[in-house]
Amino acid sequence: MKMGILGTGMVGATIGTKLVQLGHDVKMGSRSAGNEKATAWAKSAGPKASTGTFGETAAYGTILFNCTKGAASLDALRLAGENNLSGKVLVDISNPLDFSKGMPPSLLVCNTDSLAEQIQREFPRTHVVKALNTVNCDLMVNPAMVGGGNHDLFICGNDAEAKKTVTGILRDGFGWKSVIDLGDITGARTIEMLLPLWVRLMGLYQSPNFNFRVVR
Amino acid sequence: MKMGILGTGMVGATIGTKLVQLGHDVKMGSRSAGNEKATAWAKSAGPKASTGTFGETAAYGTILFNCTKGAASLDALRLAGENNLSGKVLVDISNPLDFSKGMPPSLLVCNTDSLAEQIQREFPRTHVVKALNTVNCDLMVNPAMVGGGNHDLFICGNDAEAKKTVTGILRDGFGWKSVIDLGDITGARTIEMLLPLWVRLMGLYQSPNFNFRVVR
Repeated sequence: MKMGILGTGMVGATIGTKLVQLGHDVKMGSRSAGNEKATAWAKSAGPKASTGTFGETAAYGTILFNCTKGAASLDALRLAGENNLSGKVLVDISNPLDFSKGMPPSLLVCNTDSLAEQIQREFPRTHVVKALNTVNCDLMVNPAMVGGGNHDLFICGNDAEAKKTVTGILRDGFGWKSVIDLGDITGARTIEMLLPLWVRLMGLYQSPNFNFRVVR
Repeated sequence: MKMGILGTGMVGATIGTKLVQLGHDVKMGSRSAGNEKATAWAKSAGPKASTGTFGETAAYGTILFNCTKGAASLDALRLAGENNLSGKVLVDISNPLDFSKGMPPSLLVCNTDSLAEQIQREFPRTHVVKALNTVNCDLMVNPAMVGGGNHDLFICGNDAEAKKTVTGILRDGFGWKSVIDLGDITGARTIEMLLPLWVRLMGLYQSPNFNFRVVR
């Protein structure tokens, strides 16, 4: 399948490389063509990897992954273009973290709204699925690296078919044993609000290699 | 030890009864003396249980439990009186949930502040310890009721000695195997912000009998 990665950071590179390994054709998009990090990534990821602008990448992929920083996500998606995003599944991995006031970061939006909801409102013809924002990028594509993979990934979105598609990639591709569907996109506020605890625990453990499990 | 319970709801009754069972002398406090629910609780909990006003209860207990609704907590503590609260350990179980706009509740304070921090700022001579706010009241005093008790309780506060005292009650009294110290009272914002996810999961499972475990 054709996949588009929006963003050239660690998350984008990790997801992109995993998707290539799974046999997909993957384009990594950035603000301008010829981005150095994207080019370096494509070179290392092999012939099924390519690069482009945000717009080219959105037009290319059937499934898109928003791997931009939360504070820059809406701008990046505007550059990608509403028409290029129309009808696409957009897996929103970003978190609206505000580092401008130092550590720990606060959230740019929370409580009665979320970044994923802002994206869904601005791009109503795109099927936004919030997922993977609650774990470190190494864990995203290799959940077995902690606790034998016996922990949970939360997902939400308005479109059942889009969630089914994404859940399939998460389970069969990335190896997630447990994907918990929190319902519609308003669930995003509940998992974006998990980030402050995640950041606190990362400081406590001095490691990002952990995740939550719901024990019943 | 002399314990004070502020609040006459399910949480207060459950914690109060457990403390009596553990051999403590427990006074349940309310806005006015002779509160019906407090009186009924004391009758059922036995001779070590008593009732009083918020002020009498705060003066009585060495360790106090804030079991009032979050939206009413600051008012209740003002009624208890700063002098009565001075030097006391206050276990803050409350959550600043706003039900005024319907379900799901939003938070009255979050992100860069929390209810526990508001309480600590207003009562600087009280040792506020945030704990137990992330689980249902039955689980608070009986963690083994789900998953053999193999899940985590988060705690935070500025006073190390107060946290040690509370952790002792949680472990040896209530049966918690794992109590994770998140550091100073600013950690409260991270666990109060866990409530939206908790509420969402309760809706999904149609049961409040679950808790989180950090898998590493």
